[in-house]
Amino acid sequence: MSAIVECVPNFSEGRNRNIIEKILAPFSATAAVKLLNHSSDPDHNRTVVTAMGEPARVKQAVLEAAAVAVQDIDLRTHKGAHPRMGAIDVVPFIPLQGYSIAEAVDLARDTARDMARQLDLPVYLYEKAATAPERENLANIRKGEFEGLAGKMTEPRWKPDFGPDRPHPSAGATAVGARMPLVAFNINLNSNDLKIADQIARCIRHISGGLRYCKAMGVELKSQDMVQVSINMTDYTRTSLYRVFEMVKFEAQRYGVQIVSSEIIGLTPMEALIDAAAYYLRLKDFSLNQVIEKRMLE
Amino acid sequence: MSAIVECVPNFSEGRNRNIIEKILAPFSATAAVKLLNHSSDPDHNRTVVTAMGEPARVKQAVLEAAAVAVQDIDLRTHKGAHPRMGAIDVVPFIPLQGYSIAEAVDLARDTARDMARQLDLPVYLYEKAATAPERENLANIRKGEFEGLAGKMTEPRWKPDFGPDRPHPSAGATAVGARMPLVAFNINLNSNDLKIADQIARCIRHISGGLRYCKAMGVELKSQDMVQVSINMTDYTRTSLYRVFEMVKFEAQRYGVQIVSSEIIGLTPMEALIDAAAYYLRLKDFSLNQVIEKRMLE
Repeated sequence: MSAIVECVPNFSEGRNRNIIEKILAPFSATAAVKLLNHSSDPDHNRTVVTAMGEPARVKQAVLEAAAVAVQDIDLRTHKGAHPRMGAIDVVPFIPLQGYSIAEAVDLARDTARDMARQLDLPVYLYEKAATAPERENLANIRKGEFEGLAGKMTEPRWKPDFGPDRPHPSAGATAVGARMPLVAFNINLNSNDLKIADQIARCIRHISGGLRYCKAMGVELKSQDMVQVSINMTDYTRTSLYRVFEMVKFEAQRYGVQIVSSEIIGLTPMEALIDAAAYYLRLKDFSLNQVIEKRMLE
Repeated sequence: MSAIVECVPNFSEGRNRNIIEKILAPFSATAAVKLLNHSSDPDHNRTVVTAMGEPARVKQAVLEAAAVAVQDIDLRTHKGAHPRMGAIDVVPFIPLQGYSIAEAVDLARDTARDMARQLDLPVYLYEKAATAPERENLANIRKGEFEGLAGKMTEPRWKPDFGPDRPHPSAGATAVGARMPLVAFNINLNSNDLKIADQIARCIRHISGGLRYCKAMGVELKSQDMVQVSINMTDYTRTSLYRVFEMVKFEAQRYGVQIVSSEIIGLTPMEALIDAAAYYLRLKDFSLNQVIEKRMLE
């Protein structure tokens, strides 16, 4: 099976169509890379690209887009609602097929090294590629943002993994990492009491004592007079969607509240859903190799 | 999205390794066709090939394998447990991706016409490709088998769709058709009473008043001291797996019997299972385009 990796680089430009087009171009330049999605938000002043393809070619496209970003984006004059520290702000690699998380970590490291060298840019490794526990969480690395970088980088513990020990004057610094595919899974409740959604989120999420690969918070859906448990499944192969669904169901019961519906936002690997089907249908001895689409991808 | 079709031709030879290898060869001769599976049963004296790929190339492989079968298999001396009427007994085409059932019917018709012309072989169209209602069911066409063909073909209503109005002396006749992907879905009960499994099968299957695209029968699993409702889902896009599962569950309740487990035998399209996940997780507004593997296949 040929290896396929996904990459979701974030660039600090969400308004200038010319620059955005130049950033997107390398992701459409070859059949070995597919531009799956891109969204530019003027308020955030940020463009998020979703691409996938052969690992070496995806890396190449990222490096080309990064060169555009360093040349055309100036963080000294950049304003936007989203926190950011660099022109290429963050570059996560996600293994999709025929590729392990360890290989994605290697790819992140190679990309970070080449990016630092080619663009004279400080680069941090994060998440599964992190070289220290406090660098796993992107928020720690980005804390202080572009404006705080020069000061932060004088501290030995914030020495970048690659590149110079000071920010790039206009392009700041970049974080490159590897992570499992993330599934954005929201569960809607027949209640408009945000406290209930918050309380349930607290029960299921890892940080408050819940499931290992689950992040969650309560959200108010005012237009629908409803609250939602908004969930990020950070490794659906270890923490199953159905398990979260059933937990939300039984936690909601104590408030006399029911699940109305759920939603998956954006993309999901088929395995995350087939795993739920296998649980509810009590499937025995089922293998993903029985799925025609899996065989077709081989 | 490139069109992909599956084909499951059945050949009346399950013992002679030389002939079997020659029949399989065309399905491995090009990267545009993938030999997914083949099984040869000496008792049935029959080889079932599962291949998929570009429609025109799959057709070509079938025609080449058919030429081998006509040359090397002689039905006049063929013995086996499985009913058969031809050296190439039956050739179903199944649309998998980027291909409609109507296109699969056209492909079946083209293949049948070319096969009849190239091999001087009578060919019947069946299932969705059938030219008369009584030809939809393969069992009707094959009734009487090879030995009865000469007599049957004198009747005007059994005139073949292509080729001569008499059997091929050694290779008989062939049925070529198109159908939706079939999912073999078995549900195991905590009972050893075959009557209960039979009774439930009768409630859910189309022929006895049940669901439109469901065939079912009760089966005894002696080694496991258990009975099973053995189900063929003939169009999972219209009759969902979860609906059959929930029906078996509530029909079993009247006997105080529960579902122990279920099984999918062989291959299934991912949609058949994702549809079940969407039901049980109450997924709202979910589209198959959100599945990464679907996007990767585009």
